[in-house]
Amino acid sequence: MEHDSTVPPSTIDKLVITLSCPDQPGIVHAASGIMSDIGGNIIQSQQFGDPDTGLFFMRMEAESPVGRGPVEEGLTRIADKFNATWRVDQLGRPLRTVIMVSREGHCLTDLLYRQRSQGLPIEVVAVVGNHPDLAPVAQFYGVPFLSIPVTKDSKVRAEAELLDLIKSEQVELVVLARYMQILSDSVCREMAGRVINIHHSFLPSFKGARPYAQAHERGVKLIGATAHYVTADLDEGPIIEQDVTRVTHADSTRDMVELGQDVERRVLAQAVRWHAERRVLMNGNRTVVFSR
Amino acid sequence: MEHDSTVPPSTIDKLVITLSCPDQPGIVHAASGIMSDIGGNIIQSQQFGDPDTGLFFMRMEAESPVGRGPVEEGLTRIADKFNATWRVDQLGRPLRTVIMVSREGHCLTDLLYRQRSQGLPIEVVAVVGNHPDLAPVAQFYGVPFLSIPVTKDSKVRAEAELLDLIKSEQVELVVLARYMQILSDSVCREMAGRVINIHHSFLPSFKGARPYAQAHERGVKLIGATAHYVTADLDEGPIIEQDVTRVTHADSTRDMVELGQDVERRVLAQAVRWHAERRVLMNGNRTVVFSR
Amino acid sequence: MEHDSTVPPSTIDKLVITLSCPDQPGIVHAASGIMSDIGGNIIQSQQFGDPDTGLFFMRMEAESPVGRGPVEEGLTRIADKFNATWRVDQLGRPLRTVIMVSREGHCLTDLLYRQRSQGLPIEVVAVVGNHPDLAPVAQFYGVPFLSIPVTKDSKVRAEAELLDLIKSEQVELVVLARYMQILSDSVCREMAGRVINIHHSFLPSFKGARPYAQAHERGVKLIGATAHYVTADLDEGPIIEQDVTRVTHADSTRDMVELGQDVERRVLAQAVRWHAERRVLMNGNRTVVFSR
Amino acid sequence: MEHDSTVPPSTIDKLVITLSCPDQPGIVHAASGIMSDIGGNIIQSQQFGDPDTGLFFMRMEAESPVGRGPVEEGLTRIADKFNATWRVDQLGRPLRTVIMVSREGHCLTDLLYRQRSQGLPIEVVAVVGNHPDLAPVAQFYGVPFLSIPVTKDSKVRAEAELLDLIKSEQVELVVLARYMQILSDSVCREMAGRVINIHHSFLPSFKGARPYAQAHERGVKLIGATAHYVTADLDEGPIIEQDVTRVTHADSTRDMVELGQDVERRVLAQAVRWHAERRVLMNGNRTVVFSR
Repeated sequence: MEHDSTVPPSTIDKLVITLSCPDQPGIVHAASGIMSDIGGNIIQSQQFGDPDTGLFFMRMEAESPVGRGPVEEGLTRIADKFNATWRVDQLGRPLRTVIMVSREGHCLTDLLYRQRSQGLPIEVVAVVGNHPDLAPVAQFYGVPFLSIPVTKDSKVRAEAELLDLIKSEQVELVVLARYMQILSDSVCREMAGRVINIHHSFLPSFKGARPYAQAHERGVKLIGATAHYVTADLDEGPIIEQDVTRVTHADSTRDMVELGQDVERRVLAQAVRWHAERRVLMNGNRTVVFSR
Repeated sequence: MEHDSTVPPSTIDKLVITLSCPDQPGIVHAASGIMSDIGGNIIQSQQFGDPDTGLFFMRMEAESPVGRGPVEEGLTRIADKFNATWRVDQLGRPLRTVIMVSREGHCLTDLLYRQRSQGLPIEVVAVVGNHPDLAPVAQFYGVPFLSIPVTKDSKVRAEAELLDLIKSEQVELVVLARYMQILSDSVCREMAGRVINIHHSFLPSFKGARPYAQAHERGVKLIGATAHYVTADLDEGPIIEQDVTRVTHADSTRDMVELGQDVERRVLAQAVRWHAERRVLMNGNRTVVFSR
Repeated sequence: MEHDSTVPPSTIDKLVITLSCPDQPGIVHAASGIMSDIGGNIIQSQQFGDPDTGLFFMRMEAESPVGRGPVEEGLTRIADKFNATWRVDQLGRPLRTVIMVSREGHCLTDLLYRQRSQGLPIEVVAVVGNHPDLAPVAQFYGVPFLSIPVTKDSKVRAEAELLDLIKSEQVELVVLARYMQILSDSVCREMAGRVINIHHSFLPSFKGARPYAQAHERGVKLIGATAHYVTADLDEGPIIEQDVTRVTHADSTRDMVELGQDVERRVLAQAVRWHAERRVLMNGNRTVVFSR
Repeated sequence: MEHDSTVPPSTIDKLVITLSCPDQPGIVHAASGIMSDIGGNIIQSQQFGDPDTGLFFMRMEAESPVGRGPVEEGLTRIADKFNATWRVDQLGRPLRTVIMVSREGHCLTDLLYRQRSQGLPIEVVAVVGNHPDLAPVAQFYGVPFLSIPVTKDSKVRAEAELLDLIKSEQVELVVLARYMQILSDSVCREMAGRVINIHHSFLPSFKGARPYAQAHERGVKLIGATAHYVTADLDEGPIIEQDVTRVTHADSTRDMVELGQDVERRVLAQAVRWHAERRVLMNGNRTVVFSR
């Protein structure tokens, strides 16, 4: 992590670069060559080639003494040659985020707490609720709360309002933090790969409504939660993170709901962090997660 | 755990008593009264009333200075009054067990190792294989290996042979240790609550064949295993124990198979131990597990 | 869970009874006899005899159609005969609790959230801080915040103020939610078995200050947290609950602090819940935890 | 993972390359340049720079169409320029391994099973025991068993015999699979970074003898195991892997021993696998583990 000492430290940009393309020789060398050409330094990097899909994935944290411009130029050249898609960003830049909620506050409270106190790299531009219940939580954390009720009649208007917000506020990430409504196909498509949902079961078990009641009924010994990208196909999007916790015969459905909330908030926060840190890359209907 | 010192210790029986019945006042008092009447001592006990099914469950470890007879008489009286089913046994008596296998040896090896070296309270009267591959493992542990091939034509005869073995050897427990065949309905009924299977997924996810391939395809982040009592309804029997382990995008289906084997053998051994220690009681299609 | 239908349901008391005494025959029968005599019903119960200490422990949830009085009379008789200590309380009654904090808010936020939304059975009569930083959190949840700064000179006065609060508010439980001060021996004695601390390591590893820095230095692969009763002997009190989370070579001390906070709040909340539900009994320097 | 189709697949070498050096710009580019120059392909790679020690670590799986020679030449050039240490090997080549045991067989049985059936990449050239008890296990798996008793008088001779074996059999890895003897400093030095021990506690808790008795005494709620490289400083070597399992008040020291054996064998097997797959790099007294 040393660098040319004649360059004043203040001009060193810390960047995070992600890239995916059909797997083929020379990609790592080409990508590291960009850093080499500009006298930059690679802090940390991971590469993975998927034998099933034939795709290659890379994530790199690097220091550039000459800013982002030359790095972007280099990546553009690579993209042409290797048919790659890439993204470069300031390392640690908070993503402009909307959190959508209904009535249950455990995930919202947790995300806002982590944003304020634990360096979760998101900037919450608004909390959107189809019920007003959680407005005080947003207010406590100094975040605007936008009430967008959703009824059968108002659904189209509600979605338009959401899309307006996303556009006007340059929203980069939408988090469904136990938002009990289904987004329309058009929103799913418009925001593909940028909407994260937390489902309160260990998918693919117990899709749909009331998963804890289903779990209790079946007598499982572990319950779980799943954070996934939202697609038009409900509960079927690419999984980012999952976890479970133990339950016993003595736990009622209500107990499971409470125990499960712990897993939900943990799994959702983990997924949001990894996404915001550019650690998650899409691999068909699966994800590559370059965790620490 | 003190007891009347005039009774020679050698005549003290350590018993394990299980009982279930419709929930109603007075059961615990009646059951503990048996021990009180005979000057016995309760070492450890657990009770649970299920508000959903209205059933009550009890497990008790106790010392009897007068043997099993008076305890059984007491339980018979209780059973009449409370409409209870019960069982009493020597604490730690090994269950007469048949282990059924196909080609994969991880569960068999593990069970036999634990039986010999870790006090797993089973007595393996035979290993039954539909392939001969694992005969040497049985032989190493000094257990008879019985080869009962199963083809479409021989299935009926094979099952008859199995039932004969169960009868002639007074088999109390059948463990399907990655036995890749389905038992017939008649065996399931005959041995209801006494056949434990290990399914190589976190049920109810990925029922049926090739669960790891299904898991890889879906891109889950945890894989698991489920030990359950076998019923005529495949992969739907009461669950005894489940556990999971973490996988990543870099794990192929083959990797998952290997990682999963660890979970399978651990979950199966745990379920067999709990069953053999009389810690598992049937509660409709669910189980009550009085774990330590 | 049925009971005499001539008794109006409104007069049924749900009670939780705990009892410990030297192990000896007849205790369970005597205790269940109380319920039997008054026509009560035992919902759930657990008993454990420790062969090492020769002590017996019992926890019982039961319904009494005649209130608490006769149950207490019965327990008094038992206590005389068996040299037992016991406690009886309304099942689910919130404990009057003081939470003590310094500057880090993750445990406080979590406890207050769980109290409000997840049925954690405590009633927070005050949050006490030696710094004012977390006053807004208390205020948000409508709980009085009391600032009691602690310096070398003010320590004696600060403790007196705390003991006054405990007395005047009939405080039953003090939770040190990352309170970075050591309580004096006199407070420890006065509140023995009623002060729970969260230590940010997997005790007995990394006692004392800066455990995450110690953990990073040693290169461990898991970090943990420990909730324990406070005794005069720092970091040595009876352990109620522990848990761990995985870390890697890439995690700095700062990363470990953040990852660890998740474990700390989870472990502390679990310990507080179990304590408040009367599931924790003292067994010398260890605990008996009758978890669900 | 494509490669020049004019090269017959049979001549493609799959290699695993590890490298560490002081962190500085250009290393990744230089290393990937080797593969680029020879028309090779990088399948998977991870890099990490430690800000604390200023060291950089890399692991790479790659395909070479021209064998190992040119890769080694390239690495030699890099080593000169960057002051690096490196190693290159056939991917998946089994390490020549000696397993040392005393009387407890759970780790040995597990390692041999995994070697035979789960692709654990070791070749067990001998099992060495200071007691003869486990000879039949080695025999079952067709591995020579060498009995080297260790007494106060014979210790020097025993170590000489071990060193002879290591030399004559070109042993690359020694696994202490619950070997209850301490190796001399000279063996530790001679085999530095190539001896893996399993300690039956979650280090640094409960160093030394009888850790489960210590754990029971202290009343911990989780017990664990630690796989580490052996150094002259007992129980202080660099940690490769750790894990834990839950225990309760009802578990005796003997129960903990049995529960702990599961963790021990799992942790040891994981550490051996990672070491054999060249995923573990030494970073002072800590390790970098490039897990999957």
